[in-house]
Amino acid sequence: MRATLMYGAGDVRVETVSDPEIQQPTDAILRVLRACICGSDLWPYGSMPASDEGSRMGHEFLGVVEETGSEVASLRRGDLVVAPFVWSDNTCEFCQEGLQTSCLHGGLWAADGNDGGQGEAVRVPQADGTLVKLPVGEDSALLPSLLSLSDVFCTGHHCAVTAGVNAGTAVTVVGDGAVGLSAVLAAKRLGAERIILMGRHMDRTDLGRDFGATDVVPERGEEGIERVRDLTGGHGTHTVLECVGTLPALEMSLGAVRAGGTVSRVGAPQYAEVPLGFPEFMKNITLTGGVAPARAYIEELLPDVLEGRIEPGRVFDRSVDLDGVPDGYRAMADREALKVLVQP
Amino acid sequence: MRATLMYGAGDVRVETVSDPEIQQPTDAILRVLRACICGSDLWPYGSMPASDEGSRMGHEFLGVVEETGSEVASLRRGDLVVAPFVWSDNTCEFCQEGLQTSCLHGGLWAADGNDGGQGEAVRVPQADGTLVKLPVGEDSALLPSLLSLSDVFCTGHHCAVTAGVNAGTAVTVVGDGAVGLSAVLAAKRLGAERIILMGRHMDRTDLGRDFGATDVVPERGEEGIERVRDLTGGHGTHTVLECVGTLPALEMSLGAVRAGGTVSRVGAPQYAEVPLGFPEFMKNITLTGGVAPARAYIEELLPDVLEGRIEPGRVFDRSVDLDGVPDGYRAMADREALKVLVQP
Repeated sequence: MRATLMYGAGDVRVETVSDPEIQQPTDAILRVLRACICGSDLWPYGSMPASDEGSRMGHEFLGVVEETGSEVASLRRGDLVVAPFVWSDNTCEFCQEGLQTSCLHGGLWAADGNDGGQGEAVRVPQADGTLVKLPVGEDSALLPSLLSLSDVFCTGHHCAVTAGVNAGTAVTVVGDGAVGLSAVLAAKRLGAERIILMGRHMDRTDLGRDFGATDVVPERGEEGIERVRDLTGGHGTHTVLECVGTLPALEMSLGAVRAGGTVSRVGAPQYAEVPLGFPEFMKNITLTGGVAPARAYIEELLPDVLEGRIEPGRVFDRSVDLDGVPDGYRAMADREALKVLVQP
Repeated sequence: MRATLMYGAGDVRVETVSDPEIQQPTDAILRVLRACICGSDLWPYGSMPASDEGSRMGHEFLGVVEETGSEVASLRRGDLVVAPFVWSDNTCEFCQEGLQTSCLHGGLWAADGNDGGQGEAVRVPQADGTLVKLPVGEDSALLPSLLSLSDVFCTGHHCAVTAGVNAGTAVTVVGDGAVGLSAVLAAKRLGAERIILMGRHMDRTDLGRDFGATDVVPERGEEGIERVRDLTGGHGTHTVLECVGTLPALEMSLGAVRAGGTVSRVGAPQYAEVPLGFPEFMKNITLTGGVAPARAYIEELLPDVLEGRIEPGRVFDRSVDLDGVPDGYRAMADREALKVLVQP
């Protein structure tokens, strides 16, 4: 089959690799119907040291079950399913607590010899626990929004949930990438009435307004913090959803949060230390969030997607086939595209 | 009147200062009945640069109202009251959210020209909002436990509450000082069944066992983390209550917390940066806590003290008069005393 590999910064190739095979009785083989490129894929795209072997890529996909291992009980050939971006047994003590990203028998796509999503097929470990059936056909117009349940929308949702967003909280969302816009939509869905989106790309912030943002702040740094404070009686918002992952974005979040408030982060941290010393202690600032256990949220969010109440798939603004994946990376890195859908 | 001043590291004196007087119509003058020395007073005691003016000291006290300003409505001369360690109007938007430490009209004792608690009398700003009446007499045996509501027990309670301690959570408490032991008692009161106390001073950890600790871990650092993991099936506890304030204590807390868990800190941070990078992000670790809004908790905790269900005043293991305050600092710094009660 053909699949995407990254060989170093800026060096993405689509190559022929060995077809996936059932290795464990709990495995399934999935033919990939839709996949996509993640903002987090851009970190190695910007900085990965050159490698002779290359790394398989992609952790967001939905597809059709082609084959199942002997112990797979809930799936059969032909099922259309979505895979969360971490696989998990969905039964261990962490999964039972809704933290499938810490599953005792889980793992990451495109790592440790596992297939990635940006390819024609994937071996799915712990298939019963990992995959969620979707009651739609291969030609459904909902596929982009359903694909967003694999990662990006669940990540925005996780950010809003762990921050404690509800109808009574004012929200600031830092970042107008696909995760930030998803966080806006998630905050709106949870009832937030005041959603301030910090971003400077008008085509993106316009989508943010469609998703529920009530204010847009293009300024950054101290100037951005001042704008948020001006909009909130001088105090900042109860919750700040940090959807970038850089230290400046986190610092801006800590500056925009109200005393007693919560910063939730879902952007993979590009820093090792967080400035949470005495001043933040005196303000009772909470830092929460982390890698999103998408598996925990899919069933809850699915009806809203199926019934058209939310359309998180609008974050996809470009579609490519497998051959177009390298240019898709380039387009996202150059900010030509917000998020690129892949149809192998 | 006489009051305590610190002139530099290790240099505490009791001197005659001007008597407090009503300055604002919302003030009250309090005759101090009981005060105490706080673990946080030991930070300047260890490091304060020499000063000619000296700094007033003390932020935990209860006493008797001597005089009230013209706008004080709820208090009268003779009332026995406890003061939380931050004064507040108890009506502003932050106070209404239970965050009196961020009161728009609040402030700190022994700072900015305000009296400290380690003296004979105190001018109390925002008296109606700040002071809580205690239905006991001046000779009540409950005074030490009631005094603990000023800071230390409320601080332990804040730590447990913000961490989300309940009957279903296993708890690790880092630190066997008066705050750590208070946190043990608070966690027990909130229903925690498994409470691991990390501390190495047996007289203190014995009191911790009385307060509800089920396990004591004297080891520190990596060894301490390993012990906690051994005690918890390898994963650590859902909540860790960090009651010290040093970076090693915080690092130990982050090592002892279970994936998806929460570290709450109430020890005043002696650090500016927190190691919460990618590994903690992948574990979905939350850092919360901060300076405790004691005022928010006093009414809730008071019945348990008055009816003898808890006895947080057991953290006081030495009592001095005002002349004994300098030696009280020394005794706490030398770990001869856990927490020193002051009877002016």
